[in-house]
Amino acid sequence: MRLLNSALEKIVPIDTNLLDKAQARLDMLTKPKDSLGRLEEFARRFVAITGETMPLVNRKVIFTFAGDHGVADEGVSAFPKEVTRQMVYNFLNGGAGINVLARHAGAEVVVVDIGVDFDFGDVQGLLKRKVISGTKNIRLGPAMTREQAIACMEVGIDLAYQYAVKGAVFGTGEMGIANTTPSSAIIAAFSGLPAEEVTGRGTGIDDKVFENKVRVIEDAIKVNRPDPSDAIDVLSKLGGAEIAGIAGLVIGAAAKRVPVVVDGFISTAGALVACELKREVRDYIFSAHNSVEKGHAVMLKRMGLKSFVDLNLRLGEGTGAAIGIYLVEAGVKIYNEMATFGDAGVSEKNA
Amino acid sequence: MRLLNSALEKIVPIDTNLLDKAQARLDMLTKPKDSLGRLEEFARRFVAITGETMPLVNRKVIFTFAGDHGVADEGVSAFPKEVTRQMVYNFLNGGAGINVLARHAGAEVVVVDIGVDFDFGDVQGLLKRKVISGTKNIRLGPAMTREQAIACMEVGIDLAYQYAVKGAVFGTGEMGIANTTPSSAIIAAFSGLPAEEVTGRGTGIDDKVFENKVRVIEDAIKVNRPDPSDAIDVLSKLGGAEIAGIAGLVIGAAAKRVPVVVDGFISTAGALVACELKREVRDYIFSAHNSVEKGHAVMLKRMGLKSFVDLNLRLGEGTGAAIGIYLVEAGVKIYNEMATFGDAGVSEKNA
Repeated sequence: MRLLNSALEKIVPIDTNLLDKAQARLDMLTKPKDSLGRLEEFARRFVAITGETMPLVNRKVIFTFAGDHGVADEGVSAFPKEVTRQMVYNFLNGGAGINVLARHAGAEVVVVDIGVDFDFGDVQGLLKRKVISGTKNIRLGPAMTREQAIACMEVGIDLAYQYAVKGAVFGTGEMGIANTTPSSAIIAAFSGLPAEEVTGRGTGIDDKVFENKVRVIEDAIKVNRPDPSDAIDVLSKLGGAEIAGIAGLVIGAAAKRVPVVVDGFISTAGALVACELKREVRDYIFSAHNSVEKGHAVMLKRMGLKSFVDLNLRLGEGTGAAIGIYLVEAGVKIYNEMATFGDAGVSEKNA
Repeated sequence: MRLLNSALEKIVPIDTNLLDKAQARLDMLTKPKDSLGRLEEFARRFVAITGETMPLVNRKVIFTFAGDHGVADEGVSAFPKEVTRQMVYNFLNGGAGINVLARHAGAEVVVVDIGVDFDFGDVQGLLKRKVISGTKNIRLGPAMTREQAIACMEVGIDLAYQYAVKGAVFGTGEMGIANTTPSSAIIAAFSGLPAEEVTGRGTGIDDKVFENKVRVIEDAIKVNRPDPSDAIDVLSKLGGAEIAGIAGLVIGAAAKRVPVVVDGFISTAGALVACELKREVRDYIFSAHNSVEKGHAVMLKRMGLKSFVDLNLRLGEGTGAAIGIYLVEAGVKIYNEMATFGDAGVSEKNA
């Protein structure tokens, strides 16, 4: 709790003067004003987040947190629960979607066992930070205790602190069979919206399974009565270890002024918990991709963020974040590397 | 004309069996079916276009064609005409937006003087393939002769043939002050829509200049009476040298089965001319970014393409194509590098 509180205290709103300063430089570059659209926004925000007037991207790290979910017993997912641990091995062997897209973006993938219901023993490359061996079934009671949720968040904060070097940018990712269910439950709890309006089809379920999923979420909220004004209460009762880890990573990134690119629906559930704890966290987040999950747009609206990768991805793992990191870096490079009108001898706009 | 005709004859529809074959492989990879959305589409199409069952991306080339426009005299642009040649120097010095984004995507930029109203003399790095020294003012008469339009297209075809190696992927780009005006005129001519409905604000013009631009396009169509069933007539009367070069490049790419990533509004005008000459050309095109120019969506609908970069870019040069190439390559890498369920020992979906 001490690490969480001190991290939250460190987080300050970004300096909007830096946004203006960065825009002034962007307007000197050899292009019509604003013609690089959101790439300019990324550059501007990157400057304001880091406080560096000529920021670099030196180290790109995607944290993929893995955890299991007791609610998988309710048949809410299209895949069996053991896929969580199988996919962890796949991550470590470099064969998953996130490995391919991270390599393509020049990013490293840090795989964290924060809550898998399996003993990996000693396996090369896995960060062993297990807090729980899977959550409990949220249809029947709380996913975890308040203390466990905080411990998971502090794993995330600790990792953010460890990797926070000058020029760092983080991405978030996750693996956890059934974890769209807790994510929908979390946004339902915060927004007060009916489960149906924030529930999607996860990795691909049919109508019958979907209806069951909605009922499970309704029951989880009825049984647990989460307090929407207490984000840790919502997180511990409905969440998952990996969602809590992501919440912590985002908080740690904001505390260290490291830009953090948040993946899709489940990652955004974690980022949302962080923002509910401290609104200013949102200043440090780039929301990467538009998830097809219905609850995602509700989360983003609540956080005041607008995502920018629209490729119909619904894999998770951090795949959208990998593409997002590439695009944010494109904005920073534009800012750093383009010639100015003066340097290039190019005439400016007619008066 | 001989080169153009023989290229058009070579173009065949892609083999849809290869699309299915590629999808069968994608479905074996360790991810829920279709969960990588459009990246899977890119991989599928890349396989069908190239005919390679395990395609590689070895050489990424963005062709930035530069040309001037007589219609700039009508005050349709926010920038003075000399910016075309100034930007060519900027491209050669590596300081423009396209240089930064091409480097970021690992692509080379080939700068082609196909129609600039300026004698560059001997300057390192510039491909000197000038056909005309700028078009004539389309408000008063045809932009160029039919022979000139064909010569420009054949420059594009010739370049495509020269660069078409195994593993190649092309991008299109352009520079030409005032060239949104001919682009809007081209789609107005093909679609029969009023100029107003396909005209945008280019690099940033105010209401008064916009109204003038619409009138100029209306006049250009009235004066020239382009025949919408004769694409070369439309191109020569309303187009530009760089637009014709792009049309040729796209045709040459399709003839050589090289995937071609088409940039925004002006590039799409070129690609549209190519598709009007031979419908099958569309099979070989990836439309990169959604332009804010109104006529762009009309063009894409006509070609049956759906773009995928939505960053509010409106710079041209090939900047959207550079990002598009990165994303298409991401799809190819997913296809080539991800582990299968069998290899990774990951359980498949529940029955």
